[in-house]
Amino acid sequence: MNVIIYPERADWKEILKRPTLDTGSLRETVCGILGRVRNEGDKAVMEYEEMFDKVKLHSLAVTEDEFREAEKAVSIELKAAIMLAYKNIHTFHSSQKFEGKKVSTLPGVTCWQKAVAIEKVGLYIPGGTAPLFSTVLMLATPARIAGCREIVLCTPPDKSGKISPAILYAAQVAGVSKVFKAGGVQAIGAMAYGTGSIPKVYKIFGPGNQYVTAAKQQVSLRDVAIDMPAGPSEVAVLADETANPAFVASDLLSQAEHGVDSQVLLVTTSRGLLEKTQAEVERQLALLPRKQIAMKSLESSRLVLVESLEEGIAMVNEYAPEHLIIETRDYAAVAEKIVNAGSVFLGSYSPESAGDYASGTNHTLPTNGYAKAYSGVSLDSFVRKITFQEVTPEGIATIGPAIEVLAANEYLDAHKNAVSLRLNRKI
Amino acid sequence: MNVIIYPERADWKEILKRPTLDTGSLRETVCGILGRVRNEGDKAVMEYEEMFDKVKLHSLAVTEDEFREAEKAVSIELKAAIMLAYKNIHTFHSSQKFEGKKVSTLPGVTCWQKAVAIEKVGLYIPGGTAPLFSTVLMLATPARIAGCREIVLCTPPDKSGKISPAILYAAQVAGVSKVFKAGGVQAIGAMAYGTGSIPKVYKIFGPGNQYVTAAKQQVSLRDVAIDMPAGPSEVAVLADETANPAFVASDLLSQAEHGVDSQVLLVTTSRGLLEKTQAEVERQLALLPRKQIAMKSLESSRLVLVESLEEGIAMVNEYAPEHLIIETRDYAAVAEKIVNAGSVFLGSYSPESAGDYASGTNHTLPTNGYAKAYSGVSLDSFVRKITFQEVTPEGIATIGPAIEVLAANEYLDAHKNAVSLRLNRKI
Repeated sequence: MNVIIYPERADWKEILKRPTLDTGSLRETVCGILGRVRNEGDKAVMEYEEMFDKVKLHSLAVTEDEFREAEKAVSIELKAAIMLAYKNIHTFHSSQKFEGKKVSTLPGVTCWQKAVAIEKVGLYIPGGTAPLFSTVLMLATPARIAGCREIVLCTPPDKSGKISPAILYAAQVAGVSKVFKAGGVQAIGAMAYGTGSIPKVYKIFGPGNQYVTAAKQQVSLRDVAIDMPAGPSEVAVLADETANPAFVASDLLSQAEHGVDSQVLLVTTSRGLLEKTQAEVERQLALLPRKQIAMKSLESSRLVLVESLEEGIAMVNEYAPEHLIIETRDYAAVAEKIVNAGSVFLGSYSPESAGDYASGTNHTLPTNGYAKAYSGVSLDSFVRKITFQEVTPEGIATIGPAIEVLAANEYLDAHKNAVSLRLNRKI
Repeated sequence: MNVIIYPERADWKEILKRPTLDTGSLRETVCGILGRVRNEGDKAVMEYEEMFDKVKLHSLAVTEDEFREAEKAVSIELKAAIMLAYKNIHTFHSSQKFEGKKVSTLPGVTCWQKAVAIEKVGLYIPGGTAPLFSTVLMLATPARIAGCREIVLCTPPDKSGKISPAILYAAQVAGVSKVFKAGGVQAIGAMAYGTGSIPKVYKIFGPGNQYVTAAKQQVSLRDVAIDMPAGPSEVAVLADETANPAFVASDLLSQAEHGVDSQVLLVTTSRGLLEKTQAEVERQLALLPRKQIAMKSLESSRLVLVESLEEGIAMVNEYAPEHLIIETRDYAAVAEKIVNAGSVFLGSYSPESAGDYASGTNHTLPTNGYAKAYSGVSLDSFVRKITFQEVTPEGIATIGPAIEVLAANEYLDAHKNAVSLRLNRKI
């Protein structure tokens, strides 16, 4: 861990630097795979599954039998935990439903927005060591609440052609329409273009490695929308002397265990807390199964001592963390001053794990400083707000003459004429 | 105009096809300009202004004097029209303010969203024959309502180094912070990276030619968010025999005059209306100053006769038009069935021009079928919804055990430990 004591403002940029993500070098590989999937569909997907996931598939869709088997294989304890998380996610995202109100901007001129679900969405769940069933809940639950007609999920199978039972169970609970055995770039291509078995969708969600990220970027240039750009996961903890060093250390470590490129930042006004947290990190780290990963990512972590809470707030706003934990006296007042963050955790009893799994907020959040411009996934991510306007003869009489002037000054006479014809009609 | 009578469902794809947008071939040129702007800042911007806009600039910022001159140069009539449009846009976008409510997902677990303005936004307004001051209003007004701290506007100057007075006047009315004389790829680069005089922003909005579009795509891969992908402007009119052929023709023509690649589609259940509209288009076209442009884009326009209103609704949903005008009996019921569109205009007295200028809705809308996944610009486009959660000791006691199970099943022991430590603490 890198300890930085009372840095100058001029050094913040260097201190808050993130690793450079260059997916440009993958472009050729990714475009090659996408091109074949676009042209050859399922055949190409199956070939790439054999090549990358070492599995020979004869069909991609998960069958009813496989769903039933999965349901049996998940323990009662895990089922109960999944249901609790699902219910909280459902409650919070249901509260985000948008009711457009009709607004009369002038007499006879009425405008409104209506939220309409994106008809077809695709969810990508990575494979690898951990079965990310929590991400299934985070993406499929709001998609279902929004009313998406088709919710497709792709995830790579293991070498025996199976998908983690917990993923299939979570998919059923949250209301996924269809699950397919496909991973990596080929899965992104399949959902972007459609294949014989995998439907084309209009928006793709979900995490992935650098190849998946590059593929999502590539298809988003023309064929499909994506949730947001991706980068390594990250946490910033803003703490004063009232914070519990063991808790702070555990929060830093839960980020550090994600991956070797995880970003971990502590900003504190208390030298005592900083030192005790360091000691606690060492102590807790020794007990972790994913110690090697956490140790690696801690190498580039930063513990920063600042002169005041105001300075600390400014620093985390400049960093724009995916997750921000505020463990300070009067944390509610501090939270009011946060302008750049994905999700904020308040007080000593709100660890990042709570939001990762079960508080109800979404864990698909903007990384890499993208929180300055992007929101995390919410119900909004699964709808479009279509605008409507209804102008009456009275309304066009009121706004028509202004439109004629505006159109004429932009040299758009046909625009003007569409109004003039209506104004001149004997009503 | 291409008349298509009772097409088969299988032919829709071909009928509804849009021109292929390939900005890939511009990639090298665009990357070259962006790279120089990133490295050389203002110097590069000025050199490109000389090269592309044929103007030698010594500074990029529009001065107070230039704003004052512009205000004098705009006619009283145009000022009044701009104010009327501004007020309606302001009224409608103000109504979109988001108030997050606190939701208790379980006792002691509280979650909420808060809308926070993007701190710095950049607006691009193209040059060319028409001064698009209406787009200034459409972008700057919601940015100001959202509370964006810095609203930067770039637009190319004419050969004498001046910017259209109407653009500068609209920028003042809507609350733009700073206007810079820069166009094209160099303007996009300047706002994405920042230069000596032009601030770096977090999100770039606004229309542009294919170079601007390609530049926005390019910078959006890493450096900055953008409003949405772009394509040629388009209108679909859905009409039955109750529609007024002169009005319908004028709406098709106001789209056609935008550019030679504008997309114009009429879907109707009435052969009589179709034929009368054709005749009206010919009649009105002859009188238009931008006749040559409109004629060219009408060449690829399509007038489609369908068997039923249901079929017509399905066809426009498949097309997902940027603008949809519904001129039918009981248009409100038809509107309920629209799932893919940017903005919808209801009834005979709601021409597209109304929304383009002054009804209050935004005219920055998804083209090229992107309405299937994207919304138009709204107040939402200028904020992020940050999520917050506060878990009390009681709350963690309720959800903690489930989090422990979920984390353990994803093999994330540090995540589990962050909860266990809190559960085990003597409270």
